[in-house]
Amino acid sequence: MPAHPTPLRFGRLLLTGAAGGLGQALRPRLKAYCDTLRLSDVADLGTAAAGEELQRAALEDAAAVHALLAGVDAVVHLGGVSTEQPWQPILQANIVGAYNLYEAARRHGVRRIVFASSNHVTGFYRQDEVISPKDPVRPDGLYGLSKAFGENLAQLYFDRHGIETVSVRIGSSFPAPKNRRMLATWMSFDDLERLVMASLTAPVVGHTVVYGMGDNTTTWWDNTSARHLGWRPQDSSEPFRPAVEAAEAVLDRNDPAVLYQGGPFVRTGPFD
Amino acid sequence: MPAHPTPLRFGRLLLTGAAGGLGQALRPRLKAYCDTLRLSDVADLGTAAAGEELQRAALEDAAAVHALLAGVDAVVHLGGVSTEQPWQPILQANIVGAYNLYEAARRHGVRRIVFASSNHVTGFYRQDEVISPKDPVRPDGLYGLSKAFGENLAQLYFDRHGIETVSVRIGSSFPAPKNRRMLATWMSFDDLERLVMASLTAPVVGHTVVYGMGDNTTTWWDNTSARHLGWRPQDSSEPFRPAVEAAEAVLDRNDPAVLYQGGPFVRTGPFD
Amino acid sequence: MPAHPTPLRFGRLLLTGAAGGLGQALRPRLKAYCDTLRLSDVADLGTAAAGEELQRAALEDAAAVHALLAGVDAVVHLGGVSTEQPWQPILQANIVGAYNLYEAARRHGVRRIVFASSNHVTGFYRQDEVISPKDPVRPDGLYGLSKAFGENLAQLYFDRHGIETVSVRIGSSFPAPKNRRMLATWMSFDDLERLVMASLTAPVVGHTVVYGMGDNTTTWWDNTSARHLGWRPQDSSEPFRPAVEAAEAVLDRNDPAVLYQGGPFVRTGPFD
Amino acid sequence: MPAHPTPLRFGRLLLTGAAGGLGQALRPRLKAYCDTLRLSDVADLGTAAAGEELQRAALEDAAAVHALLAGVDAVVHLGGVSTEQPWQPILQANIVGAYNLYEAARRHGVRRIVFASSNHVTGFYRQDEVISPKDPVRPDGLYGLSKAFGENLAQLYFDRHGIETVSVRIGSSFPAPKNRRMLATWMSFDDLERLVMASLTAPVVGHTVVYGMGDNTTTWWDNTSARHLGWRPQDSSEPFRPAVEAAEAVLDRNDPAVLYQGGPFVRTGPFD
Amino acid sequence: MPAHPTPLRFGRLLLTGAAGGLGQALRPRLKAYCDTLRLSDVADLGTAAAGEELQRAALEDAAAVHALLAGVDAVVHLGGVSTEQPWQPILQANIVGAYNLYEAARRHGVRRIVFASSNHVTGFYRQDEVISPKDPVRPDGLYGLSKAFGENLAQLYFDRHGIETVSVRIGSSFPAPKNRRMLATWMSFDDLERLVMASLTAPVVGHTVVYGMGDNTTTWWDNTSARHLGWRPQDSSEPFRPAVEAAEAVLDRNDPAVLYQGGPFVRTGPFD
Amino acid sequence: MPAHPTPLRFGRLLLTGAAGGLGQALRPRLKAYCDTLRLSDVADLGTAAAGEELQRAALEDAAAVHALLAGVDAVVHLGGVSTEQPWQPILQANIVGAYNLYEAARRHGVRRIVFASSNHVTGFYRQDEVISPKDPVRPDGLYGLSKAFGENLAQLYFDRHGIETVSVRIGSSFPAPKNRRMLATWMSFDDLERLVMASLTAPVVGHTVVYGMGDNTTTWWDNTSARHLGWRPQDSSEPFRPAVEAAEAVLDRNDPAVLYQGGPFVRTGPFD
Repeated sequence: MPAHPTPLRFGRLLLTGAAGGLGQALRPRLKAYCDTLRLSDVADLGTAAAGEELQRAALEDAAAVHALLAGVDAVVHLGGVSTEQPWQPILQANIVGAYNLYEAARRHGVRRIVFASSNHVTGFYRQDEVISPKDPVRPDGLYGLSKAFGENLAQLYFDRHGIETVSVRIGSSFPAPKNRRMLATWMSFDDLERLVMASLTAPVVGHTVVYGMGDNTTTWWDNTSARHLGWRPQDSSEPFRPAVEAAEAVLDRNDPAVLYQGGPFVRTGPFD
Repeated sequence: MPAHPTPLRFGRLLLTGAAGGLGQALRPRLKAYCDTLRLSDVADLGTAAAGEELQRAALEDAAAVHALLAGVDAVVHLGGVSTEQPWQPILQANIVGAYNLYEAARRHGVRRIVFASSNHVTGFYRQDEVISPKDPVRPDGLYGLSKAFGENLAQLYFDRHGIETVSVRIGSSFPAPKNRRMLATWMSFDDLERLVMASLTAPVVGHTVVYGMGDNTTTWWDNTSARHLGWRPQDSSEPFRPAVEAAEAVLDRNDPAVLYQGGPFVRTGPFD
Repeated sequence: MPAHPTPLRFGRLLLTGAAGGLGQALRPRLKAYCDTLRLSDVADLGTAAAGEELQRAALEDAAAVHALLAGVDAVVHLGGVSTEQPWQPILQANIVGAYNLYEAARRHGVRRIVFASSNHVTGFYRQDEVISPKDPVRPDGLYGLSKAFGENLAQLYFDRHGIETVSVRIGSSFPAPKNRRMLATWMSFDDLERLVMASLTAPVVGHTVVYGMGDNTTTWWDNTSARHLGWRPQDSSEPFRPAVEAAEAVLDRNDPAVLYQGGPFVRTGPFD
Repeated sequence: MPAHPTPLRFGRLLLTGAAGGLGQALRPRLKAYCDTLRLSDVADLGTAAAGEELQRAALEDAAAVHALLAGVDAVVHLGGVSTEQPWQPILQANIVGAYNLYEAARRHGVRRIVFASSNHVTGFYRQDEVISPKDPVRPDGLYGLSKAFGENLAQLYFDRHGIETVSVRIGSSFPAPKNRRMLATWMSFDDLERLVMASLTAPVVGHTVVYGMGDNTTTWWDNTSARHLGWRPQDSSEPFRPAVEAAEAVLDRNDPAVLYQGGPFVRTGPFD
Repeated sequence: MPAHPTPLRFGRLLLTGAAGGLGQALRPRLKAYCDTLRLSDVADLGTAAAGEELQRAALEDAAAVHALLAGVDAVVHLGGVSTEQPWQPILQANIVGAYNLYEAARRHGVRRIVFASSNHVTGFYRQDEVISPKDPVRPDGLYGLSKAFGENLAQLYFDRHGIETVSVRIGSSFPAPKNRRMLATWMSFDDLERLVMASLTAPVVGHTVVYGMGDNTTTWWDNTSARHLGWRPQDSSEPFRPAVEAAEAVLDRNDPAVLYQGGPFVRTGPFD
Repeated sequence: MPAHPTPLRFGRLLLTGAAGGLGQALRPRLKAYCDTLRLSDVADLGTAAAGEELQRAALEDAAAVHALLAGVDAVVHLGGVSTEQPWQPILQANIVGAYNLYEAARRHGVRRIVFASSNHVTGFYRQDEVISPKDPVRPDGLYGLSKAFGENLAQLYFDRHGIETVSVRIGSSFPAPKNRRMLATWMSFDDLERLVMASLTAPVVGHTVVYGMGDNTTTWWDNTSARHLGWRPQDSSEPFRPAVEAAEAVLDRNDPAVLYQGGPFVRTGPFD
């Protein structure tokens, strides 16, 4: 077998989806861990800072994605649709796009990918269930379905081609939790950064699935099986609880958005 | 389905068993979360403070219990026998009484109950076993048996009637741990209050079983499956360890009260 | 510890509920395994055949039950309410009655009991779930709740007093399956007899829970954990399938009686 | 909720992929269970027999698929690519095609689908592992990946829209096992027919995953969780063992096609 | 990696412990599957039949064991102490001897071993527990302890050196079951032969642990995890039940030999 | 049964392997918990401090070990080989030696032993797996194999003779972690001392297996099943991470010493 080195610092790191919410948060943070940070998105990325490379690409454009992966040591793949949308954009960006990315990684010899999966992969579990990354998936919409596809693709590329992935089922990563559901799902940008870097630098990850959440008191997810990553969240949603509860004092358990972990995703979407 | 709202603050909260040890501890604490705190017991409850209603009732008295539930938003059910006793009082207060309470809750449309169950539901596990709320019950006496009945009743009223319950298998809630067994089972009144309120206000609980214990270093119980409640104990028995150990320096493992989690309950009781 | 002998044949065997459907089926069958078969019920038992003793008793009558257990080597306890009924008869016959029986067994030194529990202890699992006797109970009514009480009582009397019990969660034991639900739940009288005798004579049973069902092609229950009993059902519901399906050609999954394992029990009963 | 009736016999049944190997096997067999059997494929279907409707359609053609589902009571979905192939045909037929099928089912009110999934969904487990339908997927190629997508889609349409699916992870269904791997994976056409019909007519299936295999002595898959379907395979690969072993007397465990359950799929495919 | 071929028929097969009870039973049977059957024991092996080689060796004699393995394709290792004995003979034959055998196998490139382990590796489980090969070991004496050592050695030589082993935890293999315990543990010589040959010829076994028992109605062991071996027992202890039960009509559960799966082993042995 | 008292402080405590690395660390620490600390090793132990007894003994010398145990209340057994070595020293010190120790403990009525097992008992699990003490062992060499033997011996002496043991699968106990693997495996001497004392004084331990590791952020082991010991590690490897990572910036996942939990042990040793 060829060598499969995992460094702590990277020559060139690729961040896809760099113009999105999490992409903007990670852009300045990831720069510290690499010589060159290649940034990509379908949207405008502004101007390149020192050490940055901007390379616009639609994920469904195989040639563009192959060009994107050239010379890259590792990938943080945030790109694609990140909300519930109609089938076509999800198919193109999240299914065709994920395939393009892994094929390009394989051809260019990239060995490690952090894949932004989503808690919506298991959004149809109830809010009174505590689940683990080993439980069967229950996507809550087309978006969650496409993320489950991405995780399975990552498993295949590990079993078949030895490319390692950490699939991070991101909860809700914002400056602060916005509602009571996020008391369970919230993860700070600092915890996100630590999780991404642990995923990139842990010596062995195979294909690991982990929920991206803070050190929250309310928890639906048990990450025990991913403790080898060397990551523990440090920020908690608890300080935000009084304000969040005050703004949403009464919830109705019969509302599917309250009953299921996926929240409003379980009842929104392209289904008419 | 009718709406099933869960508020953070209650119009009228019912506390049964309000004259007992835990009842006295919770009485002033629960007042902060409701407009009116209805208190009940078979024993004398003193005089009503502002915002309190006193309503004496024996739990085996169906009519009295039905009156008790009228106009109530949620219940903290500490009432009934809380020690190992002969069959008749346990039958009346804990079995007939629990049935009366749930039937009254159903008729009056009460949607959420915190049920004071007990670690004695699983008292015949050994002290070198770590168990979870999903493991089969092993009651250590008639008291534990009656609490297992109450939990199953709660499950039935959830599956059949949608009434949600958190069954709290209380360890030992006292101002301080009194002996070495309580190093594992102890829970402070502050942690009890936080657990009761989390159980009343968590958006979705279905029927959740949780062990009521502190953040103790010695632990027999794994509450992972109940982390959705949004409760983490904050007080530990550890600071009390030196004093407790000094007073009970030698234990004999062949004593059933040492060997089993139920402690002395496993060998006391009405069996002659 | 005193000797705890388990014979293959019994001096005196007690059959409670002997006037009921299963009691009538077992009455002539059990006679072959004992010198004396004591029969009891609240209903009329006819006249005693050779080797039979008739002893009428209400299970809630402690004194009568104690008299019933005198001189008995082992018990097949079918007695009590076996359908969904109001609380009072279930409380008296199945809860108070079960307690009386076990207390009497303890005082008279009886060492082995076969307890007729019911599949309604877990009737609120869905018909597309396969469960085991170790899964948490989900009773579908007061009847199932009382049977769960009986099982927990049996566990207590084993852990505390060494009395062994096999709790048989009987499905549907009739001459033939009557409807499509019984394709899963049906057990022939021959299989019932074999299960009862295996339960009485297996050298070690502790407290074993087993589902009483035939060798049916449709199955909701996995009895792997009870294979030490030395029982395998031999009769199948499959030959009855064509007739049963013809008579009930269309089922509606949205009917709770179709959706849940408990069948019609999940929507009948004393709740108005 | 609207009624959700499951009949034993169907007005109009749709069989997709009817021109393929399994489609040809099932075509005459399914006719017995419906008034009209609608057959579809991209390939030629010959002429319609009595009670047959032929409707050619490419699965990636949404309009054609919607037309296909009109007036249909239930679907046996064998259509799509069934071998390891390049990404484009798999994407079109198995991913876009599966989406089109479920969307059409939803719009036309179809309530039950049998989905021909594949053992290649878990082909990267070793041949010395016995797995169950609840274990995490490990697809062995793009084909297995696309079938995992189909299963997750089925789960979503059940959780969200109440459409029930049995996903049958077909092993190897041929007149006879062709090689030693098929001693584990073989399923006769008779067993396939019985499994399809059990899946169509079982009263409640939700989304059930089951491995389609015979009553083989060599087994990698434990179907315990699907025993509610009312299906037991009756044919075994064992009588074919002598001939099969004689033709393939020596296997090399270091060959991935021998080591992994997926057999040759784990090393063939579009990856160059 | 070097090729790792598994044939169906062997050039030279080694049978150790060939003079013991099971050795004598297998000696004529194994001859059919190899050109040369090398037989070894510390005891006299009589004269060599056609195709047999006799090679006397004490397992603790490393040089003799290395000579034994020369030119061998696979091993059926029955050799060593097979009853509870003092430490020295068990240490020499079963611990040192097993190490010698595996080291010799490694040096001579032998790729597959069937190791006669024992149910006494788990003899301290109770007779009312059904266990699997994945459960923690609980040896019932020095003999069982030495067999657990052999299994762990086999695991090591697989993980480290790729030598595959099937560890068969033999129950009781005799012409007929001799007592009631053997109703659970008995395995016929025919089933033993089939199990040994399945273990030698299954394409992939890694290190598989399987209980060697018949198709008995009374069962303590669940072999689901070993079904990939392609072995199902065909003979049952059940026809022997009447005679066996008649000869041992009453058992005392308080006797450790009745209570535990290991039977008399749990109370015999060198401990004074 | 004889009394089985567990004190908090000991008359005479035996520490074997007292001249080794951990022995030297524990020697001054254990003195505080006993009147007399008996120290033993094959190597020189220097001169006895106040309250110390020095008793040189080779563990394979049964008579010497029996003398060692005389008058001892409890044992901390660090003695034996603690690195990968050839078979003979491991056989003598770790297998024969462990047997001698337990036999001597049995004869002298010693009731509690802390056994220094090793993470190398499970060294062939991958570094991306999180395992528990209940998972099957996978030793990474002869050393790990001998420690698995010791654990099974401890289980036997508990089940058969009631001697309690805590088997501590020590990770890496040094003043500081020396390399990146030790970020997961490191345990401070303070945490080791606390773990040893918790193991000696917990009221009931039976045979408990626990991993000896710090409160590290990177973790491969889940000690939930041992929380009854009353031990939580307090020191973390995390402060050492920057220095350790700087010194070992790139790891190659294809190196078995990186891939498996056992680290370099999986490829060193006496196998040529």
